[in-house]
Amino acid sequence: MSLIFYYAPMSTASVTSLVLEELELKCEKIRVDLKKNETRTPEHLKLNPNGKVPLLVHDGTPLWESAAITMYLGELFGVEKGLYPAPGPKRGEAMKWIVWANVTLVEAVVRWAANTQGWWPEEQRNAKAGEAGKADMHGCLKILDSALADRAFLLHEYSLADTHLHSFMDWLRHMNVDFAPYENLNRWGEKCSSRPAYTRLMAQQG
Amino acid sequence: MSLIFYYAPMSTASVTSLVLEELELKCEKIRVDLKKNETRTPEHLKLNPNGKVPLLVHDGTPLWESAAITMYLGELFGVEKGLYPAPGPKRGEAMKWIVWANVTLVEAVVRWAANTQGWWPEEQRNAKAGEAGKADMHGCLKILDSALADRAFLLHEYSLADTHLHSFMDWLRHMNVDFAPYENLNRWGEKCSSRPAYTRLMAQQG
Repeated sequence: MSLIFYYAPMSTASVTSLVLEELELKCEKIRVDLKKNETRTPEHLKLNPNGKVPLLVHDGTPLWESAAITMYLGELFGVEKGLYPAPGPKRGEAMKWIVWANVTLVEAVVRWAANTQGWWPEEQRNAKAGEAGKADMHGCLKILDSALADRAFLLHEYSLADTHLHSFMDWLRHMNVDFAPYENLNRWGEKCSSRPAYTRLMAQQG
Repeated sequence: MSLIFYYAPMSTASVTSLVLEELELKCEKIRVDLKKNETRTPEHLKLNPNGKVPLLVHDGTPLWESAAITMYLGELFGVEKGLYPAPGPKRGEAMKWIVWANVTLVEAVVRWAANTQGWWPEEQRNAKAGEAGKADMHGCLKILDSALADRAFLLHEYSLADTHLHSFMDWLRHMNVDFAPYENLNRWGEKCSSRPAYTRLMAQQG
């Protein structure tokens, strides 16, 4: 099997890095420099026309979108390792949370961050849109917090749904989002952070 | 098997409607009225705390996010019908396109529409952000158009990846997005529109 992983620090490729580490999958890792536009070269665009990472090439087939990659790796390699449910409603729950992170949560986060954090050109910002995005982001965090009220992990047992969402929470903590109101989420986050795979990855990244 | 589908016209539940029709799955359909806030009732929020549709309840398990639902139905019911690939790289291609629609394409579309189409409160708009969103949306359509240059359908044979993305294209056409530049996409769209499932659904919806 051939698995080639293109990544950049401080991108959603971090989610895939953690998933690969949990699955202990051997792959060739190729670091690209976003500042040097290395995701916009003809070679990269041929593999991912969106000009982004993560990009995973499995036996010659290029795959993009971190949510798709987590589910893809989960179903192929996670079931036998007890990290991803077999097909059926329980897998559906993993899928709904993983997609929710990239669609509903990230939409709100980007609306907040793009209007307030200087990612986007200043002329495109609107302070009120940023406030609304922040409120919606906290609405999402409250949903996640409530979902974790009666369980240790999203599907009770640890799964790649936790890996995926925990990595997004790390990104939000890095942006100094206030997690104080979210007791269940914080308790869960500590358990996710104590996973050997997480510890190994943090050590690799220094 | 029990399958209950909560939907509303003019929402991303339309994507799920078309997927269910392609799969010819029998389900109980419950129409909710978005204007009456019927997705915000305690009963609905208990099933989908995001207060949205589509919502699919499969054997008692509530599933949300249209991209997750398409992939979920695909892997459970689509493989034997030849509408979704078996696990492996080809399925990965279906997954990357389905997730791409909801994440990358919709992010650009919403940025355009929210700043120009009156969905969002006017005080939150920024005309320049709308222009940038429009340019990014057309960048996405160009990617899809190019992907279809050498093939009839996204995975060569028709699959739920086409169903899913075709439904999003319908939404964009409804918002009068200019599709004139996208020859391959239009050719593909005509083929998708000639599917019996699509014809049946359009007839049901009048």
